[in-house]
Amino acid sequence: MSDIPYKVYLSENEIPSAWYNVRADMKNKPAPLLNPGTGEALKAEDLMPIFCEELCKQEMNNDDKWIDIPGEVLDFYKMYRPSPLVRAYCLEKALGTPAHIYYKFEGNNTSGSHKLNSAIAQAYYAKKQGLKGVTTETGAGQWGTALSMATAYFGLDCQVYMVKVSYEQKPFRREVMRTYGATVTPSPSMTTNVGRKINEQFPGTDGSLGCAISEAVEAATSQEGYRYVLGSVLNQVLLHQSVIGLETKAALDKVGVKADMIIGCAGGGSNLGGLISPFVGEMLRGENQYEIIAVEPASCPSFTRGSYVYDFCDTGRVCPLAKMYTLGSNFMPAPNHAGGLRYHGMSSILSQLYADGYMKATSVKQTDVFAAAEQFARVEGILPAPESSHAIRVAIDEALKCKETGEAKNIVFGLTGTGYFDLVAYQKFNDGEMSDYIPTDDDIAKSLAQCPKF
Amino acid sequence: MSDIPYKVYLSENEIPSAWYNVRADMKNKPAPLLNPGTGEALKAEDLMPIFCEELCKQEMNNDDKWIDIPGEVLDFYKMYRPSPLVRAYCLEKALGTPAHIYYKFEGNNTSGSHKLNSAIAQAYYAKKQGLKGVTTETGAGQWGTALSMATAYFGLDCQVYMVKVSYEQKPFRREVMRTYGATVTPSPSMTTNVGRKINEQFPGTDGSLGCAISEAVEAATSQEGYRYVLGSVLNQVLLHQSVIGLETKAALDKVGVKADMIIGCAGGGSNLGGLISPFVGEMLRGENQYEIIAVEPASCPSFTRGSYVYDFCDTGRVCPLAKMYTLGSNFMPAPNHAGGLRYHGMSSILSQLYADGYMKATSVKQTDVFAAAEQFARVEGILPAPESSHAIRVAIDEALKCKETGEAKNIVFGLTGTGYFDLVAYQKFNDGEMSDYIPTDDDIAKSLAQCPKF
Repeated sequence: MSDIPYKVYLSENEIPSAWYNVRADMKNKPAPLLNPGTGEALKAEDLMPIFCEELCKQEMNNDDKWIDIPGEVLDFYKMYRPSPLVRAYCLEKALGTPAHIYYKFEGNNTSGSHKLNSAIAQAYYAKKQGLKGVTTETGAGQWGTALSMATAYFGLDCQVYMVKVSYEQKPFRREVMRTYGATVTPSPSMTTNVGRKINEQFPGTDGSLGCAISEAVEAATSQEGYRYVLGSVLNQVLLHQSVIGLETKAALDKVGVKADMIIGCAGGGSNLGGLISPFVGEMLRGENQYEIIAVEPASCPSFTRGSYVYDFCDTGRVCPLAKMYTLGSNFMPAPNHAGGLRYHGMSSILSQLYADGYMKATSVKQTDVFAAAEQFARVEGILPAPESSHAIRVAIDEALKCKETGEAKNIVFGLTGTGYFDLVAYQKFNDGEMSDYIPTDDDIAKSLAQCPKF
Repeated sequence: MSDIPYKVYLSENEIPSAWYNVRADMKNKPAPLLNPGTGEALKAEDLMPIFCEELCKQEMNNDDKWIDIPGEVLDFYKMYRPSPLVRAYCLEKALGTPAHIYYKFEGNNTSGSHKLNSAIAQAYYAKKQGLKGVTTETGAGQWGTALSMATAYFGLDCQVYMVKVSYEQKPFRREVMRTYGATVTPSPSMTTNVGRKINEQFPGTDGSLGCAISEAVEAATSQEGYRYVLGSVLNQVLLHQSVIGLETKAALDKVGVKADMIIGCAGGGSNLGGLISPFVGEMLRGENQYEIIAVEPASCPSFTRGSYVYDFCDTGRVCPLAKMYTLGSNFMPAPNHAGGLRYHGMSSILSQLYADGYMKATSVKQTDVFAAAEQFARVEGILPAPESSHAIRVAIDEALKCKETGEAKNIVFGLTGTGYFDLVAYQKFNDGEMSDYIPTDDDIAKSLAQCPKF
């Protein structure tokens, strides 16, 4: 065995003091958000009725390469960061692969995922602006949990619209949010205009992130002293999540390892975007080459089967338009899809990088994902989130390819979180009752047909 | 703020290479186990039909101060250890106390608690002995989860008898165990003689750890190639858990801090015994003084209201007799008790130390425990296990006393695990539906009357 430890820990003073803004190094900047009424590019000021001021500026900032992490955010980071970069010795042994597998584990905090990295930043800026509270949507509940932890820390009110199917499948996440003082409403609800409209249009719907976003935005803009915050997709979120990649890079440098391949799951793109940012930065500056793979569920394949067009970010069409790989804002993954990563679109930054050839994408079926999750849990100890297990699936497959070719590649993947609140899905898998659904071309074409034309 | 980091991490090569056996330093050794039929002290050989050979030897070993941790166990430890010693800066600030609060956090692994420290050791010795599998009981499910992780790692079969009330209140823990390949049976079941007998005697019973132990022992002794393993109470378990205290001591030494007070929750005593062992060792050798406080639930108060006598370790009376603080082997905590720590007795080692004045004990009500849990979660981020929250309650109370007296005591407590699988109980607390039940003197006297006379 080499002298690389099982877990490469940085010290607290090695937590990055600034976030890295990959847009500063992109020649082709991500396309701007558009006003859905006029089709004109939005300015920071246009977003301020919806988002916190400082976050609007970050959203539009394509120029500053480094943005200081505020001291109060850094103090909070110190409660759960730096997160470990783990050498998967036991998985390598179980696979019999010559590959060296590393994973950046973001699940060792109560929110159970990387989402806390951006939640605490957004809560901080809301507090700084003197707001009373924030509203948001949550799917699997990771983001809502993270935000409720962050708002509890800063003494802000927190109103969460939770995708109905998750609200029902994951009642315990609701209780975590309540323990942190948040109120949680299943979406689509009857408490907002847009919720009532969606319920009318799609009776008995399971909900989607797109619906929940619409409701949360309406709730924010109709209450004094509230703003809306979002846990993925946005440029600001990828900025905050760069802390993952910066720590990963620093830990690899510490043990003298150069990554060959970087793998991350992709829903809205927050984890993947954060993980790869410093590595892509090197590619953009022509300093280095990496093979980067985005992994998405076959049931919600925005990169691999979507179109790169302007689309609504939400089902209710109240949000700005973003140019992204999308399946159409009305797209809803099949109800048997249990593995998160349900959003219809993809981060504009990642979409542009993908379009420019800086990364690949692949999709995997959920039964294969859970098989990888179980295999990983049994040898590496950690019970992974279904989302993270998409990356595990591909990391295992790539390591097995190395076994055939004899290559000792350095494979790095993002283990975004734990599956402690996903046991209903694990139970289905354990009972052999999990199935796969892959949308037909017709399903996707119909949904895409409703994208606006710009 | 001082220059002590939020989390004091040791490096992997600072994980102890040997467990510390506190019995070697005890003048008054813990009383020996007795044969329930003859009343005679048992030898290691007598236990070998029930327990693994090497573990029987460890159980009886009152002499060797250090027992080497096998390399394969150390390798597994490296996947989740060293665990952090956290300085609770945010809690101190919220309380406005001059006290310095530290907690050793054992919850950052999928079993969610310290139980894994002994589970992996016991599974290793079972594998080394060439066994097919092991049987055990579990209450809240932490031990069963830990054991199923450990047996999956070594490729052993794992049969878990889970206290019925937990099986129903915590169905997700069952799925974690199943994901790791274990079979889980609610106890008392109809699959064993003793289970059928207990069901007949107490129809509709919620079960107890004492019942589940009886069933697991019967299952082990009636199958070829199986042995029984236990997650607490036993000397061998406290031995393995000494890794907690050794790391805590090493981390405190690293930052030059001398603990004044050490607080741990106490069910069977595995966490507390492990946490305090090196500190008590110093007290036993006359090198140092510490104030040590065991915290137990008011609904199951073995230290504070039990008797120090020989008693059965299990309800079915198939196990050896142990001298311990006990409430009687038929004692069952009230059904409204949700906070773990349900065992009727207490580790013989801790019982002897308590009888000899090396530690204090106190009991707390569960509504006060959950209030402390919520307060802690909101400022320190971590959602604690109800068990651990007993220690949090007392740590907070002691820190508030320091606020009155102005003392800057160094308070160290054991945060044994996370509450991610205790959300039913948190929900009750959030809904204001949690109640307290304190057994009457008569309840306890009746139960104690059934202890054997030796």
